[in-house]
Amino acid sequence: MRVDIGNALDEVASPGVPRDALERLDERVADAHERIARGRADDEFGYAALNLPETADPDAVRAAVEPFDDVETVLTVGIGGSALGAATLSSALADADAPDAYYLDNVDPDHVRTLLDGLDLSRTVVDVVSRSGTTAETLANFLVVREAMAEEGVDWTERTLVTTGESGNLRDLAEKHDLPSVRVPEGVPGRFSVLSTVGLAPAALQGIDIDALLAGAAEAADGLSGSLFETPAYAYGATAYALDIRGAGVNAMMPYAEGLETFAEWFAQLWAESLGKDGLGQTPVRALGATDQHSQLQLYRAGPRDKLVTFVDVDDRPDVPIPETDLEGLDYLADTDLGELLDAEFRATEASLAESGRPSVRVELDALDAHSLGGLLYGMEAACVLAGELYEVETFTQPAVEWGKEAARDILRGERDRSEKATLRVE
Amino acid sequence: MRVDIGNALDEVASPGVPRDALERLDERVADAHERIARGRADDEFGYAALNLPETADPDAVRAAVEPFDDVETVLTVGIGGSALGAATLSSALADADAPDAYYLDNVDPDHVRTLLDGLDLSRTVVDVVSRSGTTAETLANFLVVREAMAEEGVDWTERTLVTTGESGNLRDLAEKHDLPSVRVPEGVPGRFSVLSTVGLAPAALQGIDIDALLAGAAEAADGLSGSLFETPAYAYGATAYALDIRGAGVNAMMPYAEGLETFAEWFAQLWAESLGKDGLGQTPVRALGATDQHSQLQLYRAGPRDKLVTFVDVDDRPDVPIPETDLEGLDYLADTDLGELLDAEFRATEASLAESGRPSVRVELDALDAHSLGGLLYGMEAACVLAGELYEVETFTQPAVEWGKEAARDILRGERDRSEKATLRVE
Repeated sequence: MRVDIGNALDEVASPGVPRDALERLDERVADAHERIARGRADDEFGYAALNLPETADPDAVRAAVEPFDDVETVLTVGIGGSALGAATLSSALADADAPDAYYLDNVDPDHVRTLLDGLDLSRTVVDVVSRSGTTAETLANFLVVREAMAEEGVDWTERTLVTTGESGNLRDLAEKHDLPSVRVPEGVPGRFSVLSTVGLAPAALQGIDIDALLAGAAEAADGLSGSLFETPAYAYGATAYALDIRGAGVNAMMPYAEGLETFAEWFAQLWAESLGKDGLGQTPVRALGATDQHSQLQLYRAGPRDKLVTFVDVDDRPDVPIPETDLEGLDYLADTDLGELLDAEFRATEASLAESGRPSVRVELDALDAHSLGGLLYGMEAACVLAGELYEVETFTQPAVEWGKEAARDILRGERDRSEKATLRVE
Repeated sequence: MRVDIGNALDEVASPGVPRDALERLDERVADAHERIARGRADDEFGYAALNLPETADPDAVRAAVEPFDDVETVLTVGIGGSALGAATLSSALADADAPDAYYLDNVDPDHVRTLLDGLDLSRTVVDVVSRSGTTAETLANFLVVREAMAEEGVDWTERTLVTTGESGNLRDLAEKHDLPSVRVPEGVPGRFSVLSTVGLAPAALQGIDIDALLAGAAEAADGLSGSLFETPAYAYGATAYALDIRGAGVNAMMPYAEGLETFAEWFAQLWAESLGKDGLGQTPVRALGATDQHSQLQLYRAGPRDKLVTFVDVDDRPDVPIPETDLEGLDYLADTDLGELLDAEFRATEASLAESGRPSVRVELDALDAHSLGGLLYGMEAACVLAGELYEVETFTQPAVEWGKEAARDILRGERDRSEKATLRVE
């Protein structure tokens, strides 16, 4: 990935970052880079995720999925980082003739029932993903899926891939039934796991080129240096941080590629769960160009000056010419194609924000392919880790979700009632 | 819909609204309600949208879609409000055996080509939606669809429904080819058009009960009164406004129902494009319970105190029991079902935010059905119009998107180059 942060400078935007502030910040980037390099060298918790381009074992992933034939559908049962990485790869990279991919990443009974009713479970591979083997939503859904298979006369042990840690419920289950399985690596939090078995296994089942994905990520890893002016990932992370502390508390991720809509959701988890701590952290917002020009742009251009808009643009797009027409007022579409129209919309939107003094950053990809996506995903992870160092937060933990998990268990056990602090009902 | 704003009070949360501030605000709500009632009585631009439960003509919609038989797919070609309302109704209400619904609401050539290649166009109904008949993205996509039909030997005039205003390109086209068509009503901005022909026609093609939808909306319309303490929609709009001006500049819409995921996107357009003006407006964020507990909750609970979380809870859900298991640590799931688990997750998350003093509002629906959804959509529109009155902005216009539209045309005509204000590239 390449990055242009020109439209985030204070010459253009307010809030904006002065060039000399970036130069001062670069000294902290150098220190942070050293910390990151040390963490990677020691395979420390979290930092280990930035070693995945080297440590992932694509051959083992391919071997684990090899037993499954006649695959019509890949059903990932997981939640949060256990599903979003896989979904991101699938949306961006799966061919039209690849097996369909679905996700049980919620426990909505209506949705689960409807989805399972619509699948041919005898031609479905279920990838059940939980490092601990105790994630309530995932295990509940897996039990429902197993029962649905039994009801259709499908042997679930023939159609299940287990993605879990070294020990626990799911590891025991895999061993008991001799199920194909892959190991969730140590030291890799869920939101940083897309380049591990968690993302790679369902990608391989869909025929995605996981070697190219890892090669693109490895190239980004090799490019990390001690200066934001030489490292696109750090340029992005440092600029987002510098804008946030100057008032841009919202980061709208707006790719101009339909296939990156799920990437924006993946980014939102990465950013929110890693940096949302100690009263700090930029709020990620998912958007999609050009669609959200007709939805969110009014707010971005004329609302509060609290936003960074991050564009992701793709250089190389397929040709889909716009047919000629005699419809009035559309002469400017003559001799163009959809990609040119999309690119013009992007350029106009970027210019529109700059013209009104709203900061934006442009991230550029050569194409929407496995190599470029590997670079983008790795780059955003590195950007996030850098930002965490600059904020001085614990990037790799998520303590604020634990209270709610325990409360949910208590409620189900009948040990806690709805603990409303106050009620003011209007009916 | 019913609303509980207790957890948004300053007794619970910071920022929070004091009860006496709400009472003072209620005087402004009374004035705003009078303004709204006057606008409705005069069918003024925008306010007219709040009359749709009465003025929409479901029989005309049914008559327009009646000619189409053998419908496997409904393809809506429209962008922004011309697609989001239809998609919201479809996601929430379409039966599993209804025709599939797809949307061309972007001009990504990759996506358009892949989607069209996958459809049987001879069994597809295309609903082309543009009030003006000049929306660049929509018309370009429609031209591409027409050509794809021609290439497959499908007569596009047999498979096209036109949804447009009284005059213009598409109206001329409909008349020339004698196409089934419905009229986009006057005075209804796109983001307020879900209860008009724009939302109702594709819904009718999917067999959705549009009478029940309008009846639910009519009930909400009848319930509008001059006090926020008696009107759920106003309670919501006034609370969101009161929290925003106290520092909650972000509004995370988090339904606990997979079928309402698109509703959150619809809400985001409604809120952003209506209120994002004059440097004001709350930034809508789309979330989904329980999924986003594993993604966004860390930020909501421990990040900056700049958020209102809006929950939408559904009382009545289908039964999907969780099968018994001997897996360790999952005893608390015994004798429960997915709906109970989802509800426990919701209650725990709501309590978790209250416990950490973060404001939330609960919106409750009896069930995820057409009647309740009609009430929810109408209620949120009324909440938004009320909030616009309180902010004193022009709720029904979107001036900030016009500059970009002209710039895109200029770029395509070669009359404008990429107007970067500044460049700072990192590669």
